[in-house]
Amino acid sequence: MLDVQQLSIIGTGLLGGSLGLALRRSGFHGRIIGIGHRQSTLDIAREKGCIDQGTTDLAMGVAGSELIIIATPVRLIAPLLAQLSDCAATRAVITDVGSTKLSIFQASLDSLRYPERFVGSHPMAGKEVHGPQHACAELFAGKPCIITPAPPMPGGWQTDTQAVQLVEQLWSGIDMRVVQMSPEEHDQAVARISHLPHLLAVLMVQSAQRDGGLDVASTGFRDTTRIAGGDPQVWADIFLSNPQGVSSAITQLTRDLQQFQGLLEKQDRDGVLQLLEQSKQLREKWMARQWGAGE
Amino acid sequence: MLDVQQLSIIGTGLLGGSLGLALRRSGFHGRIIGIGHRQSTLDIAREKGCIDQGTTDLAMGVAGSELIIIATPVRLIAPLLAQLSDCAATRAVITDVGSTKLSIFQASLDSLRYPERFVGSHPMAGKEVHGPQHACAELFAGKPCIITPAPPMPGGWQTDTQAVQLVEQLWSGIDMRVVQMSPEEHDQAVARISHLPHLLAVLMVQSAQRDGGLDVASTGFRDTTRIAGGDPQVWADIFLSNPQGVSSAITQLTRDLQQFQGLLEKQDRDGVLQLLEQSKQLREKWMARQWGAGE
Repeated sequence: MLDVQQLSIIGTGLLGGSLGLALRRSGFHGRIIGIGHRQSTLDIAREKGCIDQGTTDLAMGVAGSELIIIATPVRLIAPLLAQLSDCAATRAVITDVGSTKLSIFQASLDSLRYPERFVGSHPMAGKEVHGPQHACAELFAGKPCIITPAPPMPGGWQTDTQAVQLVEQLWSGIDMRVVQMSPEEHDQAVARISHLPHLLAVLMVQSAQRDGGLDVASTGFRDTTRIAGGDPQVWADIFLSNPQGVSSAITQLTRDLQQFQGLLEKQDRDGVLQLLEQSKQLREKWMARQWGAGE
Repeated sequence: MLDVQQLSIIGTGLLGGSLGLALRRSGFHGRIIGIGHRQSTLDIAREKGCIDQGTTDLAMGVAGSELIIIATPVRLIAPLLAQLSDCAATRAVITDVGSTKLSIFQASLDSLRYPERFVGSHPMAGKEVHGPQHACAELFAGKPCIITPAPPMPGGWQTDTQAVQLVEQLWSGIDMRVVQMSPEEHDQAVARISHLPHLLAVLMVQSAQRDGGLDVASTGFRDTTRIAGGDPQVWADIFLSNPQGVSSAITQLTRDLQQFQGLLEKQDRDGVLQLLEQSKQLREKWMARQWGAGE
């Protein structure tokens, strides 16, 4: 159980709102303060029971909180860390829920007075809708959450162990499976399971358009490219805040694609079959690990 | 309405079986003969009402049929064309439902005595299950079907106009939207909307495995890679029978990926945003054209 008297959630949209609901359902008894740009959003979050109280004033909203969770779009996180440097309590632990972690970790080192009490988080949960009106207490349960303490740093500097424990409690308390990675490992892994797949859906639409494919594409293509319907502003920020991870995933994929061209050229049925069977098996084993036997 | 007294469906699995059901529902009154390897499959197809009669003897099954539809896996189509050359009626029109068209068209030129009465088809419909037990009359309705008469050929040789009309009637009669392309145009377009997306799902699983991504991947990745669970044997045949289409789609994608790396390197937010917005709009316009306003 999360042992704090008061915490603040900055940004009470789908993720922030759902976090509030999930905390309540898990039996958390402390106060939950919501902070946002728009009073109307805060009002919805409060009426839904996501937060106890809402304010548009950052300094007021974080005063006295032992834990601060930034649940805004990625591009607002670095500026918020700079502001929190002045107004957060000295001992407050800060985390965020952004989809990239290395550039945010770097911003924490640059901006915060106590960066050792910052631990990035990335709960692997979401929906294709926005706003606290869609918040739900079950959004996170059973899914992975990556937390990213500092990697070994020059001079032995490290993230505060108690801060890591508190952030781990936050997520495991709402039934997430917590995994630790360095910010850089996170960005590499997530580039491969989320950012590259998104980019590929976007480029597949372009490719189909150029060659008349869209005229005959059907439900299969609609499902394959569904994520290309995501918010361009949000995704532009994600790509631009993970340039190394995305770029190295592209370089590796390009190599794999060229190898496959070689198999086709040689009409190497065994080679093609081996690749397809291996991927099918990897995916099935992974699914059995994550969700048991059924999909 | 399809105006033939008798037709034969070779392969009474999901596609062949569903075709029989759809023809009956559309009011087709002629006889439907099913031909297959296994008597047990034919029995199921007959009991479900997909066919009137089933046989494992190809020559008997096509005797007297004015229209022959090959609905087997891709790799069996070319050998079947060679066998049909001997036993199909002289005036019989032959089509198939294979996912690639250029190599099958070439096989028809090589094998058939009357290749001008062969017209390839690719109904863009399917499910991830097999066998006549899953056949359903609604599988095809409202979806595109590409038919591929010969392109302009040396010496003015061309596909028989009546054969083209009959095959068009077959699919439009069960409410498919028929589109004509040359076999080569088909393979290029379908590489982009189906074969490349499949390959990318396969490679994304490999990529995630290599970099620890599978340990933290969740429902989003499961959905993105769902098609990588397809039958390796079937897909190996599809890739190997469309080497040009797939390879040129790969080359083009590689160029697009490298361009995107350039945008990231320059941190060109406008360029990234423009790409994402364009794809989102293209996809939305396409969906509105295909299915009206809603998804």
